[in-house]
Amino acid sequence: MPEPPVAIDPADWVCPLPLRETKRIVLGHGGGGVLSEELIENLFLPAFGGAAGPARDSALLDVAGGRVALTTDSYVVQPLFFPGGNIGDLAVNGTINDLACSGAQPVALTAGFILEEGLELEVLGAVAETMGKAAANAGVGIVTGDTKVVAKGGADQLFVNTAGVGVVPAGVHIGPERVRPGDHILVSGNLGEHGVAIMSVREGIDFGTVVTSDSAPLHRMVAAMLDAGGAAVHALRDPTRGGLVASVVEIARAATVGIELEIAKIPVPETVSSACSFLGLDPLQVANEGKMVAFVDPLHSEAVLDAMRSRPEGADAAVIGRVVAEHPGMVVGKTPFGTTQVIERQLGEQLPRIC
Amino acid sequence: MPEPPVAIDPADWVCPLPLRETKRIVLGHGGGGVLSEELIENLFLPAFGGAAGPARDSALLDVAGGRVALTTDSYVVQPLFFPGGNIGDLAVNGTINDLACSGAQPVALTAGFILEEGLELEVLGAVAETMGKAAANAGVGIVTGDTKVVAKGGADQLFVNTAGVGVVPAGVHIGPERVRPGDHILVSGNLGEHGVAIMSVREGIDFGTVVTSDSAPLHRMVAAMLDAGGAAVHALRDPTRGGLVASVVEIARAATVGIELEIAKIPVPETVSSACSFLGLDPLQVANEGKMVAFVDPLHSEAVLDAMRSRPEGADAAVIGRVVAEHPGMVVGKTPFGTTQVIERQLGEQLPRIC
Repeated sequence: MPEPPVAIDPADWVCPLPLRETKRIVLGHGGGGVLSEELIENLFLPAFGGAAGPARDSALLDVAGGRVALTTDSYVVQPLFFPGGNIGDLAVNGTINDLACSGAQPVALTAGFILEEGLELEVLGAVAETMGKAAANAGVGIVTGDTKVVAKGGADQLFVNTAGVGVVPAGVHIGPERVRPGDHILVSGNLGEHGVAIMSVREGIDFGTVVTSDSAPLHRMVAAMLDAGGAAVHALRDPTRGGLVASVVEIARAATVGIELEIAKIPVPETVSSACSFLGLDPLQVANEGKMVAFVDPLHSEAVLDAMRSRPEGADAAVIGRVVAEHPGMVVGKTPFGTTQVIERQLGEQLPRIC
Repeated sequence: MPEPPVAIDPADWVCPLPLRETKRIVLGHGGGGVLSEELIENLFLPAFGGAAGPARDSALLDVAGGRVALTTDSYVVQPLFFPGGNIGDLAVNGTINDLACSGAQPVALTAGFILEEGLELEVLGAVAETMGKAAANAGVGIVTGDTKVVAKGGADQLFVNTAGVGVVPAGVHIGPERVRPGDHILVSGNLGEHGVAIMSVREGIDFGTVVTSDSAPLHRMVAAMLDAGGAAVHALRDPTRGGLVASVVEIARAATVGIELEIAKIPVPETVSSACSFLGLDPLQVANEGKMVAFVDPLHSEAVLDAMRSRPEGADAAVIGRVVAEHPGMVVGKTPFGTTQVIERQLGEQLPRIC
């Protein structure tokens, strides 16, 4: 008589790996996905005495009678140089865009370098020069900095942190708590270019056409959007690590609303989608470094869309979906075939060290 | 007949190493000494389009009608934990003290982590908890942050960057350009403790007594000094990397004044001086993380000294020298024997990864 099948206790189901039970940092803790969020909610916020308020890329402070936005990002992208830019302009544009997401106009940046002993000064010089040019292009000063050096093997070439301060114009209130069912969801242009540019260099793959990073500062486009839409611009997100999906899932959860994306309307270049199929990546979860996702009152979304398109960095802007009252906290995608799929963030990191 | 001695061209004299001719980063570029300064002046300032203005730890910005100070520092101290603190409180107190050096009261901090894959979450948790406690103790919030993870071997455990924003009260103008001949030089307490605390753990040396790091926030003491001395407080420096010597040499050069230190009056604990003799270190060039050097109008230095001593973090404050019109840019030390010696900064790094 055969043995009866052994019952598996669902509590023992661990697939593919017990990442949440880990006692050590895994790459996914830095990936901008679910694990990153868990690290913030379970470790940093309790330690720093903060409450899990609306998830934002910047903090808003009342300083000297005005509202000031403050943000920070460290950059560890590998390789340091890639088609369309290097770690330097990424660090400048990325922090400017985090400020722009709170509706702030950037005022000043800091630059903190961690260098590996033996790094060629020429490499550091090229990165610093790019940072200076990117800052000048954006009309923002790099006003203070710091340099630490660790022994060979203690770091990988060059890491840079940029923190940024911006001023939020009077009357501007942008945040996930303002998102409402009915809001249109706009994206400022083609998705997936930064991630594919990095991967093509890293893996040495030739996709026929060179895909270049979209790294660009977006604060002027945001100013144009606010001029056109004013208080109708409810929330802004730059879809970096985790891509479009991370941005919209975070908003859905923070605002307790449902989100419906129309997959066919999301602008993904042919080069990006073919590179992503080859690499097994989802272009909607690949990092962008010069794109903005906006949640806008439907009565004003046409005007805001026109304002985006009036700027070169928003030339390919499109309406890609809407906010709904149904399935709060959940994002669904409507396919061209009329079917619907649930869209979820990755647990950890699809592409490590992408920014 | 013996060969005539070969003449050596002085241009070929290279001793001990041609550090200034290097095309690569050396540890000394992060040491807060001459090489750090050369890197800033020759590489960062030209790249960032800045002029070599008064050397400061913070930048001052006009924001929303008020004056705001902005600063950044990365922390790479090794080991992460040491007597008297860990990398977490160092990162909080260090950035608060950089703000305090510009006379600013800190408003908010950012925290940017770079983590090595495999780091124990318990370690990260202990560091974050210490940061939260240090921030609460200082009455400052950690308001935004960022976490990146690099693969094992790509970083050494945990690096953290803190940037800080502070508000400079109306009427406060502190900077090396205000230093005048005749100014008294005050130090807020015992020197050398942080560096010796780190070295004793790192080298596993038992000096009989445990020397603990002096890591502490100094903004409340600075507020008391400004209350007592007002505009008579001309310049402030926190003697971290490079110690007291780096602070006073930088002021002498930036203000184009001479400085005379009375060596016997500089407070160095017996435990620190004996540890330093054993390790071959100069206690005046060892890092401090809870001390302030002040340049004060002599008519008000007694009042400012009393204000420092009224706070626990300034209990051992002393007048240690004065600013003179002679030998501009140069610091000299008067020994107890009546002799005088020129005091110069080290070229690079006496103690790598001290903060």
